[in-house]
Amino acid sequence: MCNLRAKPSPGLPEETALTISLYQSSVPVFERCLATFLTILDKAAAHAAAHKVDPSVYLATRLRPDMLPFVRQTQIFCDGAKNTSARLAGVEPPKMEDIEASIDDIKARIHKTLDFIKTLKAADIDAAADRDIIFPRGPNKMKMKGADYFLHFALPNFYFHLTTAYAILRFNGVDIGKSDYLGEIPRISQA
Amino acid sequence: MCNLRAKPSPGLPEETALTISLYQSSVPVFERCLATFLTILDKAAAHAAAHKVDPSVYLATRLRPDMLPFVRQTQIFCDGAKNTSARLAGVEPPKMEDIEASIDDIKARIHKTLDFIKTLKAADIDAAADRDIIFPRGPNKMKMKGADYFLHFALPNFYFHLTTAYAILRFNGVDIGKSDYLGEIPRISQA
Repeated sequence: MCNLRAKPSPGLPEETALTISLYQSSVPVFERCLATFLTILDKAAAHAAAHKVDPSVYLATRLRPDMLPFVRQTQIFCDGAKNTSARLAGVEPPKMEDIEASIDDIKARIHKTLDFIKTLKAADIDAAADRDIIFPRGPNKMKMKGADYFLHFALPNFYFHLTTAYAILRFNGVDIGKSDYLGEIPRISQA
Repeated sequence: MCNLRAKPSPGLPEETALTISLYQSSVPVFERCLATFLTILDKAAAHAAAHKVDPSVYLATRLRPDMLPFVRQTQIFCDGAKNTSARLAGVEPPKMEDIEASIDDIKARIHKTLDFIKTLKAADIDAAADRDIIFPRGPNKMKMKGADYFLHFALPNFYFHLTTAYAILRFNGVDIGKSDYLGEIPRISQA
């Protein structure tokens, strides 16, 4: 049922070699993004204190009335990291309740998410590239091969909500920049 | 100098298998995102016409005075797709001037970017996973292995500017939603 070496997806050139792993592309990426968002949240808390703003104002901020508020954006990107990693690993994603009401609550949710994805095995995730992944989309259950699911659905969704959360804080005046978003880039050096 | 089969990055578990390709993770992803942004731009043009707004207002919109305007976000994500794909392929990225002044100009830039990345060879990009990539970051020249560069610098940057561009149009009231952002998801079906 699971191939340890997945074939390239249909439609890819025959000469395409397998050069990175699905685990390497997912869990360590989610870890970097989630860990750096803890720092962003600390800056948001400091900004609120300095400006005598109730931080719950940030949690409720939307870029438009019909867009989701900051707190939902953070819940969704946490669930993105958790559900994507779990589904690729062939594990049932643990349910986390959407009950965050403070910056500390969001930090706790991120820590819980990090703790969970660290438990997943690289080999299980790597085995998913050519395996069918079933996932909800609105009222429907959808099916994609693991690599397609990750590259064309799960990862763009994750970055969408992560960036929107960042943009809402930036819109509220929190003093953050691109390097806060990227976080600690692994194995980078001056050329 | 270039290994067709890259070893897992340092720090990854030994059992990590190579299960997807760097080409598969980059060019087709950029293609989907850029192609769908053409549709988003058509919706922006239609929205401007319906509301008798000069579309150049959208090009100049920023979420904050010290954030980049919409037109720069689109130039940067186009350059992200172009430069990332070129560097991974070991090709000098062609320079494109930042002269867009209309929605049609941005569409033309996207088409030029799509035309360029389609010329790159999958095997050249796949050979980059363990090769040093040199790239500018602010005033510095930085160095990373291809897989790290792609996963922890280039792709998060690309999605950052793509999502911010989307958010600016959304903020301006353009009638777009998540499915416009995701575009045509390949090989998805109902389970």
